[in-house]
Amino acid sequence: MEFTPNLVHDSPTPLYRQLYEYIAHRIRSGELPRGLRLPATRELAGLLGLNRTTVSAAYEMLETEGLISGQVGRGSFVAAGAGPAGAVPWSTLLERNDMPAAAHAGAPGGEVISFAMSRPSRELFPLDEFRASCQAVLARRDLADILQLGSPSGYEPLRRYLLDEARRQGLAGAGDDLLITNGCQQALDLIGRVLLRPGDTVAVEDPVYTGLKHLLAGMVAQLAGIPVGPDGLDVAHLARVLERERPRFLVVTPNFQNPTGETLPLAARRALVDSARAAGVPVVENDAYCDLRYQGAPVAALKQLDESGGTVLLRSFSKVSFPGLRVGWAVGPRPLIDRLRQAKETADLHTDQLSQAVLLEFAQSGRLQAHRQRVLDAGAERLAATLDACRRFLPPGTRWTRPQGGMNVWVRLPEPLDAGELLPRVQKEGVDYLPGRYFAVSRLEPGALRLSFAGLAPDQIRAGLAILGRIVAGELARSSRGFEPAPAMV
Amino acid sequence: MEFTPNLVHDSPTPLYRQLYEYIAHRIRSGELPRGLRLPATRELAGLLGLNRTTVSAAYEMLETEGLISGQVGRGSFVAAGAGPAGAVPWSTLLERNDMPAAAHAGAPGGEVISFAMSRPSRELFPLDEFRASCQAVLARRDLADILQLGSPSGYEPLRRYLLDEARRQGLAGAGDDLLITNGCQQALDLIGRVLLRPGDTVAVEDPVYTGLKHLLAGMVAQLAGIPVGPDGLDVAHLARVLERERPRFLVVTPNFQNPTGETLPLAARRALVDSARAAGVPVVENDAYCDLRYQGAPVAALKQLDESGGTVLLRSFSKVSFPGLRVGWAVGPRPLIDRLRQAKETADLHTDQLSQAVLLEFAQSGRLQAHRQRVLDAGAERLAATLDACRRFLPPGTRWTRPQGGMNVWVRLPEPLDAGELLPRVQKEGVDYLPGRYFAVSRLEPGALRLSFAGLAPDQIRAGLAILGRIVAGELARSSRGFEPAPAMV
Repeated sequence: MEFTPNLVHDSPTPLYRQLYEYIAHRIRSGELPRGLRLPATRELAGLLGLNRTTVSAAYEMLETEGLISGQVGRGSFVAAGAGPAGAVPWSTLLERNDMPAAAHAGAPGGEVISFAMSRPSRELFPLDEFRASCQAVLARRDLADILQLGSPSGYEPLRRYLLDEARRQGLAGAGDDLLITNGCQQALDLIGRVLLRPGDTVAVEDPVYTGLKHLLAGMVAQLAGIPVGPDGLDVAHLARVLERERPRFLVVTPNFQNPTGETLPLAARRALVDSARAAGVPVVENDAYCDLRYQGAPVAALKQLDESGGTVLLRSFSKVSFPGLRVGWAVGPRPLIDRLRQAKETADLHTDQLSQAVLLEFAQSGRLQAHRQRVLDAGAERLAATLDACRRFLPPGTRWTRPQGGMNVWVRLPEPLDAGELLPRVQKEGVDYLPGRYFAVSRLEPGALRLSFAGLAPDQIRAGLAILGRIVAGELARSSRGFEPAPAMV
Repeated sequence: MEFTPNLVHDSPTPLYRQLYEYIAHRIRSGELPRGLRLPATRELAGLLGLNRTTVSAAYEMLETEGLISGQVGRGSFVAAGAGPAGAVPWSTLLERNDMPAAAHAGAPGGEVISFAMSRPSRELFPLDEFRASCQAVLARRDLADILQLGSPSGYEPLRRYLLDEARRQGLAGAGDDLLITNGCQQALDLIGRVLLRPGDTVAVEDPVYTGLKHLLAGMVAQLAGIPVGPDGLDVAHLARVLERERPRFLVVTPNFQNPTGETLPLAARRALVDSARAAGVPVVENDAYCDLRYQGAPVAALKQLDESGGTVLLRSFSKVSFPGLRVGWAVGPRPLIDRLRQAKETADLHTDQLSQAVLLEFAQSGRLQAHRQRVLDAGAERLAATLDACRRFLPPGTRWTRPQGGMNVWVRLPEPLDAGELLPRVQKEGVDYLPGRYFAVSRLEPGALRLSFAGLAPDQIRAGLAILGRIVAGELARSSRGFEPAPAMV
C-alpha cells in the first residue's frame, strides 16, 4: 500500500482535507479494501513530511464519514461498513455552510393563537377581487406573452407601472432603474450576491429580521448590529460604525421595522443618509411594510432624501396583498440594477409572470387601493387591541413598543425572565410567539419577544395576551420568591 | 496633510486596495479638498514602507474612479470632478463579479426568423385549457391558503403529486425528497450555492447551456468541459476527469442536450454512473427536456440507474407547458434536499403559489398530457422540417446532429467558416441563431451554431434555412476563391 497524495501546500484547501480526500477516494473506489490497516498517524506524517496533527485530522474526518474505524492500540482500519463503493459523502460535501435552520414557528394548527408569523390575515384576503383580477388577465389578448419566457427585468407592463409610480412619488430619479424580484427577500439575496465578498461587514439593525440574518450568515458576512431604540435605529451609533468599520453596505427598515415595529423619524433619516454619504456606504432601504401605516403622517423615504444615488429601495406587494404571490421590486441606481438583473437571470431567469400580470391588474383596477384601506382599518384595530391587551394583561415592569403601523410589537419582559425559556410553557397553553434571540445580532435581550398581531383577530389577540400575561406574572412571582430563603427540606 | 492608513499586511484585501479605500474615503468625506496635490508615489511609498507599485496601483484606481487626476510632470491632484461628497462608488463596489452579460438574441421583432431561443412556440399554448385550470383554482375552497405565505418546500399538494409520480416512475426512492424551485435554473443555482466553494471544479458538458456557464462563472467555479460527441457526453473522457480532477459535482443533460440535441445512450449512462460512483462525485441530472421525445424509446434516467443515492434529478414544467410560469423541481437524497430547502428559503422564501396550484390542476386534470401530445406532434414535424431543410439548403461539408427530441439542432459549418462572423450578415437578411462560442467551455468550434427550432413553424424553418444556406454557400465559395491568386490590381 503506497500513499502518494499530491498535496498542494499553498492551496486554499487545508492539507488535512486534501489528505482526507485522497484517502477517502481510494477507499470509495475500492482501491483500499475493507479491513486494511492504515499506517499509524505518526508513521504517515513522517512518510509525507506532514505534521502529525494534520494526519490525525484527516483520519478523524474519515472516521466521521464511517470510512475507517480506529481501534485503541491496534490502529485504524478501512471500515467494514464503508457502504457501497462510491456512495456520495453528502455529509462532508454539505459540511461547510452548516448554518442554523431558519426559524419556524409551529404552524397555527388547532386552537393555537400564534403571534409568531409576520404575515397578513388569511381572512382578509379579498378573494372576489383576486378572482376578478385573474379573470381580467385570462381575458387579455396578450395572455400568450404572459405565459412565454419573459425578461429578467420583470413583466414589462408591471415594471413600467411601478417605475412610473416611483417617479411620481419622487422615489426614482433620472439615474434610477427598477428590477422585479420574488419579493423583498430575493432583492436582499441578489444585493448580497452582487456586492458581498466573503468576510465583508454589513451593517444591520439589532434586533433584525431573521431572514436577513440567515441570508447574510450564509454569505459568510460579518454583521455589525446597530441598536434599535424607541426612535428606530440609533443613528449616532451607526455613524461611528460607518466611519470605523466601513461596512460593504447598510440594510435598514425605516418603517415599522421587523421585529420592533419602530419607525425612524425624519431627522434621524437625514442624519443616516448624511453619514452613509460621508462614508460612501450604500444604503439598502428594506421597506416591505411601507403601505401599512395605521396612524401618523408618512415620513420621506431614505431613497427620497439621498440625492447622491447611494440608496436602493426595496418594496413588495406581499404584505399588503397576497404573500403567496412572490412579487417585489428594487428601485436604485442603474449600475446596481443592471448587475442585479444579471444576477436575477442566473438565479432563476425571471419572476413568475402570471402573478406579475395579476398583481398589475389588481393595482391598476383600484382593487389594491380598496383592499389596502380594509387592511389599514383591520390593522389599526388589531394594533390597538394588542397595545390595549399589553396594558391590561402584562405585569408591571413589562415594556413594549408603540408602532404606527406594520405587523409587529416588541415586548420586553421584566428581568430576570427569559422569553425563550418561557416559550414552551406558553405554547403548552396554546399561544405562540418568537423569542428575541431569533432576531439578535450581538445584543441579546433575553426578555424580548415579538408579537406579530396582523394575522389575528382582536378577540384572539386579547385571549392570547391574557394567557401570556398570566404565565409571565406567575413566573415573575416565582422568580421573586426565588430570592427568598428556600424552605427547609423537612 | 498626513497619510496614516491602518494597513493590514495579512488581510485578504490587497494593500493597494486598502490604500485606495483609505484615500478614496478621505476624498469623498471632503477631508482632502479638490485640487489638493497628493504626494508622489515614490514619496508616499517611502513614507508608508510600501512598494512603489502598490502606491501606483492605488493611484490608478483613484484615477479610474475619477477621484484624482494625474498631470505629467506635476503629480496627482484631487479631482475637480470628484462628484458630490460621499457619492457611492458603484463602479468600484460592483467591480469584482464582472462577468459577461448573459447572451441575448435579438428579440424576434418584425419579420425575423429567430432560431436563437430554446423555448416552446407561443402559438401552441393551450390558452383555453390554461384558463380552465385557472378557473378551477379560483373556485377552490383553499384559495386563501394558496394566497398566504407558503412553505419553502413548495405548495404541498403539488409537491406530493410530483413525489408520488417520481416514486411511481422509479425516480425517487425511500431516501429521497423533493423540492419545488423556480424552474431548473433555480435548482442549479441552489445546488451551486450549497455545494460550491470558490475555486472548486465542476464537470459540465462542452458545449453547454449558457445559463449554467454564467451561473458557475458567477460562483467562481472552474469548469472542466467534457466533450459532447454524436452519442452525447464522452463518458471515457468524463471518467478520466472524475478520477484526476475530482470535481465537486457533475452536471449533465442526458436527454436532448442543450445546445447539441444529443441523447446519452443507456450503456453510456451506466458507465457515467459507475465512474461518478467510483469517484464519489455527485451527479446533477438536468432533465428539463425529458418530456419532449419525438421518436425512439425513452432511456432510463441517471437517477434511476444510480442506486447509491448520489444523483439529484431536475425537472420542470417550463419546456412542455408555459415557461412564463416558473415551476420546476429537484428530486434527490434527503440530506441534499434539506440543505437546498434552507437555501431556497433564504433566496426567496418559496416559489410562487398561484402558478404551482394552476400547474397542479393542469397536470391532474389530464390537460397537460393532452397538450403534451400536441407539443410532441408539432415538435416532431418541426424537427423533421429542420433536418430536411438542413439537407436541402446547407452546402456539402456541413454537418448537424439528429436529435430524437427537444428543441435544438447543432450545426457545424465547413471550415474555414466562423458562425460568429457570419451572424451579422445572416441577421441582416432577417434570420437569427446563436453561434457556438456562446456555449463553448474550452473547445471552441468556430463553425458551430445552434438552431432552436421548437418556436418556429415548418414554413419559417424552411425559409430561414434557405437564407442561411445561401449565405453559407456564398461565403464558402468566397473563402475558397481566397486561396486563388488575387487578380492584378490594374
